[in-house]
Amino acid sequence: MRPSISRSTVAGLFSVDHSAEAVNSRIGRDADPRLADIMSILVRHLHAAVKEARLTTKEWQTAIQFLTETGQMCTAWRQEFILLSDVLGVSMLVDALDHQRPEGATENTVLGPFHVADAPRYSNGATISLDNKGEPSLIRGRVLDTGGNPIAGACLDVWQCNDDGFYDVQQQDIQPQGNLRGIFESDSEGRFWFRSIKPRHYPIPHDGPVGKLLNLLGRHPYRAAHLHFIISANGYDTAVTHIFVPDCPYLAEDAVFGVKESLVVPFSKVDDAAQAAALGFDGPFWLAEKDFVLAGIGQQPTADIKTICK
Amino acid sequence: MRPSISRSTVAGLFSVDHSAEAVNSRIGRDADPRLADIMSILVRHLHAAVKEARLTTKEWQTAIQFLTETGQMCTAWRQEFILLSDVLGVSMLVDALDHQRPEGATENTVLGPFHVADAPRYSNGATISLDNKGEPSLIRGRVLDTGGNPIAGACLDVWQCNDDGFYDVQQQDIQPQGNLRGIFESDSEGRFWFRSIKPRHYPIPHDGPVGKLLNLLGRHPYRAAHLHFIISANGYDTAVTHIFVPDCPYLAEDAVFGVKESLVVPFSKVDDAAQAAALGFDGPFWLAEKDFVLAGIGQQPTADIKTICK
Repeated sequence: MRPSISRSTVAGLFSVDHSAEAVNSRIGRDADPRLADIMSILVRHLHAAVKEARLTTKEWQTAIQFLTETGQMCTAWRQEFILLSDVLGVSMLVDALDHQRPEGATENTVLGPFHVADAPRYSNGATISLDNKGEPSLIRGRVLDTGGNPIAGACLDVWQCNDDGFYDVQQQDIQPQGNLRGIFESDSEGRFWFRSIKPRHYPIPHDGPVGKLLNLLGRHPYRAAHLHFIISANGYDTAVTHIFVPDCPYLAEDAVFGVKESLVVPFSKVDDAAQAAALGFDGPFWLAEKDFVLAGIGQQPTADIKTICK
Repeated sequence: MRPSISRSTVAGLFSVDHSAEAVNSRIGRDADPRLADIMSILVRHLHAAVKEARLTTKEWQTAIQFLTETGQMCTAWRQEFILLSDVLGVSMLVDALDHQRPEGATENTVLGPFHVADAPRYSNGATISLDNKGEPSLIRGRVLDTGGNPIAGACLDVWQCNDDGFYDVQQQDIQPQGNLRGIFESDSEGRFWFRSIKPRHYPIPHDGPVGKLLNLLGRHPYRAAHLHFIISANGYDTAVTHIFVPDCPYLAEDAVFGVKESLVVPFSKVDDAAQAAALGFDGPFWLAEKDFVLAGIGQQPTADIKTICK
């Protein structure tokens, strides 16, 4: 005996063939249209992936457990879901889609989890290296608009890991506070210059679920050596970017896919005692030069990243 | 001046057009082939979804926050990621792909989060309703093989919410322990029968991130009224299923897409004092009849669900 349930009820029931449609047809008319769009697209692709993989119940249980542990690993200082997004290339993809810039403007790359809002403010020429480790380097260049004109008073918020591969915020009991981070301002000709150390490669935090996943996939956790920059100026689209060191062994396989050709900058060794002394070095140093080009705000929306420029 | 980085390095760098390929090409040769397959498929579809939606940085941040909160909502008694999988139809999809049964065999549906492994064991005819709430019902039927032969000694693990819409484990201070759950065994003719109450619809837990998402999507959190069954017997594929009540207002729009036409069972009112007395009822009761058909293990792999049948 079959109970009388209506034909329309039966037609609306879930089936493998129309699984995504069954889910998406439930979205109410009052839902925010953008959220409705995003969720419909996501459900359609998620169901397609599950079907293509023919995911088993056991594999699904493993995935649920992985996602749960990833959420539970997050703290004020550790964002494991951003890490997951990073190693799956999603962070770089979103950034690329969201920051398409005019030809010649400096490209963005990942922000990463180690930016802090209250870095020390320095004058040009100062060093951000407070722990006396690593190979000294001078970073210099100009901030320009897309027409090649200097931008005076641009704010350059810079940070990098120390020679042991850790950011100050990861080693609050070991490194001097504010080690290897600082905020500089371009001069009247758009120029900036500061001392630091030659960046080295380091592993992303890999003692959690994302590290385990990388390991199971036969992937290493290393980021190509880089120095972070947020460059902002009134009327211009903020650039969130890096400069990369060309001789880093992980340049071709950065764990978070952050390397762009235009962001790889030559580091040349300067062994000239007079020049070193004039710049505040004790001996030979690395010189890296990079001009940053900002697009006008009319050309693109501003980034969502807050800096503490005046 | 452009640093000399090799052409092969540049060719392997991340780009929007080849974003998924860039990520998947990193998988090592020693990775487990099945994991490599699943992750490659997932990355391909995830990147396609992000591109199709043209996800913004702000929306990505919202998604990261949502996933983090979903993980952090999970406890021993609350699995918010399973809930998310359920409301997005993923749980039903995985189950359907993993449990394709021969024609005539009882279909599976979602397990749900409220099964416990140590329900009370009863003889046929007993009642599982210990809180004196709800409309009395008799559930009866047979356990059969796909040839129509009775299966004696099959184990039926049953559970449902009470008339207030909560399972005993959700109200450990209010409901009697083991209320509305029990384990029965089919007799020599495959028959089972027990007393309970007519199931009613109830909301899935909706005070967390998943409830908020449903609300923003204009979706209600109600499950169509049902009684859970796990039916197992030596040599047969375990069925994890429900019976649904045909007059439930949410039958066509179960929040987790669990309804299948074959699982909707007639509930008929019996108003016969002699019959009621013989079965242990004080007055009129609902009668629901359902035969369960198990596929032989040779026909399909067993389910991953453990029951405590002998």
